[in-house]
Amino acid sequence: MDKSSLSIVKIGGNIIENKAELKAFLELFVQIPGKKILVHGGGKEATAMATKLGISSKMVDGRRITDSDSLKVITMVYAGLLNKNITASLQSLECNAIGISGADGNSITSIKRPVKTIDYGWVGDVTSVHNSNIQKLLESDFTPVFCAITHDGHGQLLNTNADTIAAELGKSLSDLYDVNIFYCFELPGVLRDISDSNSVITQLNSESYEELRKQNVISDGMLPKLTNCFDALKHGVQKVYIGNQSMFRQNETNFTTISL
Amino acid sequence: MDKSSLSIVKIGGNIIENKAELKAFLELFVQIPGKKILVHGGGKEATAMATKLGISSKMVDGRRITDSDSLKVITMVYAGLLNKNITASLQSLECNAIGISGADGNSITSIKRPVKTIDYGWVGDVTSVHNSNIQKLLESDFTPVFCAITHDGHGQLLNTNADTIAAELGKSLSDLYDVNIFYCFELPGVLRDISDSNSVITQLNSESYEELRKQNVISDGMLPKLTNCFDALKHGVQKVYIGNQSMFRQNETNFTTISL
Repeated sequence: MDKSSLSIVKIGGNIIENKAELKAFLELFVQIPGKKILVHGGGKEATAMATKLGISSKMVDGRRITDSDSLKVITMVYAGLLNKNITASLQSLECNAIGISGADGNSITSIKRPVKTIDYGWVGDVTSVHNSNIQKLLESDFTPVFCAITHDGHGQLLNTNADTIAAELGKSLSDLYDVNIFYCFELPGVLRDISDSNSVITQLNSESYEELRKQNVISDGMLPKLTNCFDALKHGVQKVYIGNQSMFRQNETNFTTISL
Repeated sequence: MDKSSLSIVKIGGNIIENKAELKAFLELFVQIPGKKILVHGGGKEATAMATKLGISSKMVDGRRITDSDSLKVITMVYAGLLNKNITASLQSLECNAIGISGADGNSITSIKRPVKTIDYGWVGDVTSVHNSNIQKLLESDFTPVFCAITHDGHGQLLNTNADTIAAELGKSLSDLYDVNIFYCFELPGVLRDISDSNSVITQLNSESYEELRKQNVISDGMLPKLTNCFDALKHGVQKVYIGNQSMFRQNETNFTTISL
């Protein structure tokens, strides 16, 4: 049976923090044909709000810790301020958005990251995507807008990486749809030379990726992102696209397409 | 054709502000048979957050004004912090909650309250409930949890009275369901003597209400609430119940039942 197509688009701070950028992105997003899901992170708004509230970001060994106060701010900013404003903007563009977290419809459960050497606090590692509830929303012609918050099923909300949420949604929903994932970030794609935005690697597969890794061509910052991408592809996602929001413009070719 | 039953329950600050009260309420809420919707206000949490952020509540002629900063705080606290924690708690009680605002699924649209003598700021008067989208959620066995925020359809979120949201949902959804509305507040019901919590008026209809109003038995604070109730009843709602959360306990009889 032919599956219908589903586009999962993840946007980060660089788009969210800039009203004009966000507006331009949302206008492109609503034009994507077929079913779609938007996943957003939080960006600097949460940090700014925490600072205003006198909550300092706790760092251990260079890693950010989500203590109770930080989780509160993240829940307010991601699930409240950003998620509802994005939803209202999409509705004004006649896209039937419904803004949710992983707790809503029990769509994404996670467990508090186990403490090995570092206690990351209220950070959740995804354990399960309940795709039947997400399917109900998609089949009712809603466009789910996920903020980067999940829950443990016992009443606890957990801060979860937005890239991972997009990948986990993609993996699970591949059982039901032909899924493509689009990671929108500040660069036009995976670069051969991090200082040259004209050096986009337009095609990447497991073989060429291994080759480039051996040659140390791919920068450290890209490695976890690409590990996420290949993991998603191995679990049924058709293709993953990485680039900035102009990859949604017609006739644009300057972005990275990743396949197995 | 027989319609299925739908219970719309509105809770206010007195329940939301107290963790133990909220937990006790949610445990009763999940036991309500049939389809249900929860509507919540915000209570003191938003005011406390505004104070922490150095935002003072603007008042004109004793009425609260929702300026841009206040709307931001309300969106963070109502749609983020409170709505997502209530949703996660309901999920832990195996109720398939989905926490939304009026912007989500374009469920409730409103207009910024027209300026006569006072500009209330970003306050919305409900213009329309799009019950087909809410019906899709209910028929997919979700339990919608509404925070008291609506939108104008042009991308603007608006602060809207939670009592009114419950009444407007009830009026519109009466086309599709047998709707009962439950207003949960700090008192056990409509009181004959505001200083005596044992003076609950257990039955009220338009006739007895008029009578009691003429006798000045019903306090000023109850009048807008009861106007809302009779308006809902006139538009198809079966019954309205007013009391504190113990009205959901089995064999409880001490609350007010309102019918036409």
